[in-house]
Amino acid sequence: MKINININIKQTFTCISEYFSPKIIGEVNDVYIKTAKIKGDKIPWHHHKNEDELFYIIEGNLFFEVEGQEGFMMEEGEMYIVKKGINHKVSSIEECKIMLVEHKTTAHTGNIISDITKTIQEQK
Amino acid sequence: MKINININIKQTFTCISEYFSPKIIGEVNDVYIKTAKIKGDKIPWHHHKNEDELFYIIEGNLFFEVEGQEGFMMEEGEMYIVKKGINHKVSSIEECKIMLVEHKTTAHTGNIISDITKTIQEQK
Repeated sequence: MKINININIKQTFTCISEYFSPKIIGEVNDVYIKTAKIKGDKIPWHHHKNEDELFYIIEGNLFFEVEGQEGFMMEEGEMYIVKKGINHKVSSIEECKIMLVEHKTTAHTGNIISDITKTIQEQK
Repeated sequence: MKINININIKQTFTCISEYFSPKIIGEVNDVYIKTAKIKGDKIPWHHHKNEDELFYIIEGNLFFEVEGQEGFMMEEGEMYIVKKGINHKVSSIEECKIMLVEHKTTAHTGNIISDITKTIQEQK
């Protein structure tokens, strides 16, 4: 039996030095829980063909752009779920700390490969 | 296309009047995101045969008991994932506000039916 421990979400960020580089902090069946730091504008517009994606703001503000909608600012304590197939992009002027809930098959930057794209192995 | 809006997690609790009564606030593919208020000791020991379950503390403290481990107190900002098949129980002396990440097939109190058990319909 794997003994789990309770994880302080904010403490996970002390182990993250790179922006746009999600780290897996837990598994719930077929879903990964990840945390990431965002600062800047390097995430390309992309979508995930088959997977919804949940963003939850732990600290800071995240500018969220979704096709067909006006861009909006997300604040601490807010969540947003991008449905599969929908193009989206997130950016932040100041550092923003986020939690993600993603199916295990979710590719980091979806249908787009860019300089910042991380494989699942790199997220472990 | 369903237009999603960003949800302030803490605001969802203003719509929850009953303890031990999770409410679905989002869907990520086969997963429900729920919030719930816990106060008291009415949740029975139970397990979910096939589903892991994530608890994340939004506000307050939650006493967590898991078979084979010493009980422990969870604080705001902490998460814990109970693996499938593992008996567990949560309780709180003061009101505690939590977020849950659960596969859609997860029964509220798992293998046990009690006075407080809610169907999925009652969680909508």
